[in-house]
Amino acid sequence: MSTQDEKQSQLTHLDEQGNIHMVDVTERPETMREAIAHAQVRMLPATTRSIEHNQVAKGSVLETAKIAGIMAAKQTPQLIPLCHPLPMTHIDLHFTLDSTQGIITIEGRTRTTYKTGVDVEALTAVTVAALTIYDMCKGVDTTITLEQAYIAQKSGGKSGTVTFKPEQRS
Amino acid sequence: MSTQDEKQSQLTHLDEQGNIHMVDVTERPETMREAIAHAQVRMLPATTRSIEHNQVAKGSVLETAKIAGIMAAKQTPQLIPLCHPLPMTHIDLHFTLDSTQGIITIEGRTRTTYKTGVDVEALTAVTVAALTIYDMCKGVDTTITLEQAYIAQKSGGKSGTVTFKPEQRS
Amino acid sequence: MSTQDEKQSQLTHLDEQGNIHMVDVTERPETMREAIAHAQVRMLPATTRSIEHNQVAKGSVLETAKIAGIMAAKQTPQLIPLCHPLPMTHIDLHFTLDSTQGIITIEGRTRTTYKTGVDVEALTAVTVAALTIYDMCKGVDTTITLEQAYIAQKSGGKSGTVTFKPEQRS
Amino acid sequence: MSTQDEKQSQLTHLDEQGNIHMVDVTERPETMREAIAHAQVRMLPATTRSIEHNQVAKGSVLETAKIAGIMAAKQTPQLIPLCHPLPMTHIDLHFTLDSTQGIITIEGRTRTTYKTGVDVEALTAVTVAALTIYDMCKGVDTTITLEQAYIAQKSGGKSGTVTFKPEQRS
Amino acid sequence: MSTQDEKQSQLTHLDEQGNIHMVDVTERPETMREAIAHAQVRMLPATTRSIEHNQVAKGSVLETAKIAGIMAAKQTPQLIPLCHPLPMTHIDLHFTLDSTQGIITIEGRTRTTYKTGVDVEALTAVTVAALTIYDMCKGVDTTITLEQAYIAQKSGGKSGTVTFKPEQRS
Amino acid sequence: MSTQDEKQSQLTHLDEQGNIHMVDVTERPETMREAIAHAQVRMLPATTRSIEHNQVAKGSVLETAKIAGIMAAKQTPQLIPLCHPLPMTHIDLHFTLDSTQGIITIEGRTRTTYKTGVDVEALTAVTVAALTIYDMCKGVDTTITLEQAYIAQKSGGKSGTVTFKPEQRS
Repeated sequence: MSTQDEKQSQLTHLDEQGNIHMVDVTERPETMREAIAHAQVRMLPATTRSIEHNQVAKGSVLETAKIAGIMAAKQTPQLIPLCHPLPMTHIDLHFTLDSTQGIITIEGRTRTTYKTGVDVEALTAVTVAALTIYDMCKGVDTTITLEQAYIAQKSGGKSGTVTFKPEQRS
Repeated sequence: MSTQDEKQSQLTHLDEQGNIHMVDVTERPETMREAIAHAQVRMLPATTRSIEHNQVAKGSVLETAKIAGIMAAKQTPQLIPLCHPLPMTHIDLHFTLDSTQGIITIEGRTRTTYKTGVDVEALTAVTVAALTIYDMCKGVDTTITLEQAYIAQKSGGKSGTVTFKPEQRS
Repeated sequence: MSTQDEKQSQLTHLDEQGNIHMVDVTERPETMREAIAHAQVRMLPATTRSIEHNQVAKGSVLETAKIAGIMAAKQTPQLIPLCHPLPMTHIDLHFTLDSTQGIITIEGRTRTTYKTGVDVEALTAVTVAALTIYDMCKGVDTTITLEQAYIAQKSGGKSGTVTFKPEQRS
Repeated sequence: MSTQDEKQSQLTHLDEQGNIHMVDVTERPETMREAIAHAQVRMLPATTRSIEHNQVAKGSVLETAKIAGIMAAKQTPQLIPLCHPLPMTHIDLHFTLDSTQGIITIEGRTRTTYKTGVDVEALTAVTVAALTIYDMCKGVDTTITLEQAYIAQKSGGKSGTVTFKPEQRS
Repeated sequence: MSTQDEKQSQLTHLDEQGNIHMVDVTERPETMREAIAHAQVRMLPATTRSIEHNQVAKGSVLETAKIAGIMAAKQTPQLIPLCHPLPMTHIDLHFTLDSTQGIITIEGRTRTTYKTGVDVEALTAVTVAALTIYDMCKGVDTTITLEQAYIAQKSGGKSGTVTFKPEQRS
Repeated sequence: MSTQDEKQSQLTHLDEQGNIHMVDVTERPETMREAIAHAQVRMLPATTRSIEHNQVAKGSVLETAKIAGIMAAKQTPQLIPLCHPLPMTHIDLHFTLDSTQGIITIEGRTRTTYKTGVDVEALTAVTVAALTIYDMCKGVDTTITLEQAYIAQKSGGKSGTVTFKPEQRS
């Protein structure tokens, strides 16, 4: 059996015949699960300053993005077909503005005590927050891009704590 | 009035006091609107080959991502707070695999005849498709990242056709 | 080209390469569309009489099924992946009880003025109404089955009025 | 008290006055619950062959129906008014094509560890999968009908394992 | 025919037999519709001051309530059973704090060009905004109540502009 | 530290910097939680009699309002941004008509065994039931108002049983 075939047989949402399926987590124990996702939105530095200025005064763009991200995390099983519904016990998002570079960094943290992890929920939260920033600023800046998004850390379950930085890719 | 203030006053989801608000499109004419969004997912080349191999045989990962993207586009006004509900008349997604680099490129196209554009819908479609690829492959590859996503083209409305490539950023 | 291949090329949700896709209705004219769907639920005659007795007094089971069917029709594009969102202008459900045979017949009617039809919406309405009857009566009757459901009539669009009775199947 | 009244008083979603109500499951123990639902879709044999041919090549129709069924199962409490939200731990659908008869048989299996069963979820999954097959094939076949759907088996809870075949109806 | 019977026969969501039904708006012309809803939330004056203080600094409670109200307005047809889906073109909410009395007044405005009005959408917006204020402040104030909510004005359609003040009730 | 500041620092959905956040309930024990919410709808006495008359015959308006309230309670975490998803085990609504005064009183009860309470769910249930009554009767009565709504009792969690009557406000 080749390495490639081995990989394929492990694709957890595919059964032996290669059909999609939802992983059966019925018999798994409940453990405390956490995940941290990162995402970035790039825009003109002037746009970042507009957000920052407004943020101090009225808090609008990032506040709206934060609420959108939290609400989307709760909707994850309705968005991602093979995701299990789960009782999320915490969702938080934090934004950092770099108005010199024109970059907003979003960090999302999710927690639950359940049979499966909350990483897709964290990644959904930061991604929808980024989409919301795009939506609110596209009228003044046609150069906005969603940049790299990934799971920086997840813990709980049989894999223990896993940390990842994209720079580690060889 | 400084350039920065000027920019800020144009933030289309903020009113004069800086509060968030939904743009009023009641009196706008209906025109044909189209948008094209691009996104990329990066993974181990071996994972791309697993998807490709399976795609030929059973079509699972990309098929699931495509359906997730189409369904998410229809949910856009429920995800993005200040987005208008609109009667989308077409949504399509197309995937290109580069199994040497380990990159999947997603192109999403949306169309409607309405008072406002469908670019957020297109960007939501490719983003949720990317999240679905992450969800289905994370069991075999812990290095998956969502890469740059943006609106490559939009047409219709008073701005006419606008094309954008991130490389144009100075 | 064989007859079978011909059929396949007409599968309206598949493009030339056989990939799924949503039909593009952007350029279609709006016409008045109507659809009538039929479904049946079979149960013990005594269960039908319970529903009927209660229906006269308090209207519960069929009233609940009716509301569930109407609300599900409005959710059709969120349930059926390649269905277009559309502005439904009327949904109605009518129930007929045959307490000798233990059969409830459900008729659902939908209307809109739009670029595509409302038949899937009508079929979703009667089907979810049937599921609701199952849910409300399963505690007293373990023999409940959903029986044949189909579109009895649809009109509007380029096909004009089409009527169908399952008995016509050869 | 007559047999009929007895039946009525057991309608689990009705209280003593005959009003609808949601069953209170607060004090029930959590047990492992499973359900198996069956449904059939009837069409022209040529349509079944189109699906089959395409299924081998690209997997489209049944793959889409499978995803729709899984996602609908997760939406069951939003569709069926008196259904409890529950943490479903597994949903699977399996399709069998009989291209001589023109029949697709759908089997849906659901699992959870909770205070109430997952049979309505399983029946919702197969029914929405059937609706999706209708939607994707109606363009080439106007004779499609949803045929009998029912719960073939459920286990867990105080009733233990219950098996049902519609032929047993007297 | 008595006055009471007359009234009953006009209950627009009931048909001649007294069954619920959705009003058929298929043949109605599209006109510009607007609605204004009012609601109030009462709390300890100190709680109002906390919100106000925070509002100036970070904008949290009312900003969150505003977003919740806008998003709920878009969900109205999924919440209110017999409400038609409609393409809302504007939703806005405005909050006024009376920190002497401990009262927050919410005004919601909705607009569309369609066959039916947007008053239920406006009332849903202010009501869900009020529920959100309750949710965010209940930890520090156990005396919060939602006070009177109503449609203050609606225009468009055959009734023209209708204005209402609850004090006019005799 | 002043009393006002103290209050503010306790606003449970705000962190130390005054940003909104979802309360982290991960480590809390599960206890049995109950809540009772009250709401009132005021209308012309003749409208109340129409509802009552119809209620006896066909049960429509209040039955529809009850179902809408139950379904909305299940949707609470999708409506109220910082609300946790939770496995609600019981929702019930009860209506009392005063056709002399033209008042419908709604009582909603919710139960769960979880880490956080079900009071927002109960308040959402009675409020959406009230909105549904408005929607169904507005065609015959333009004077309908939603009156006071509040949590009359909640129990479970560290606060024990808390009872509240609005008249206690000084």
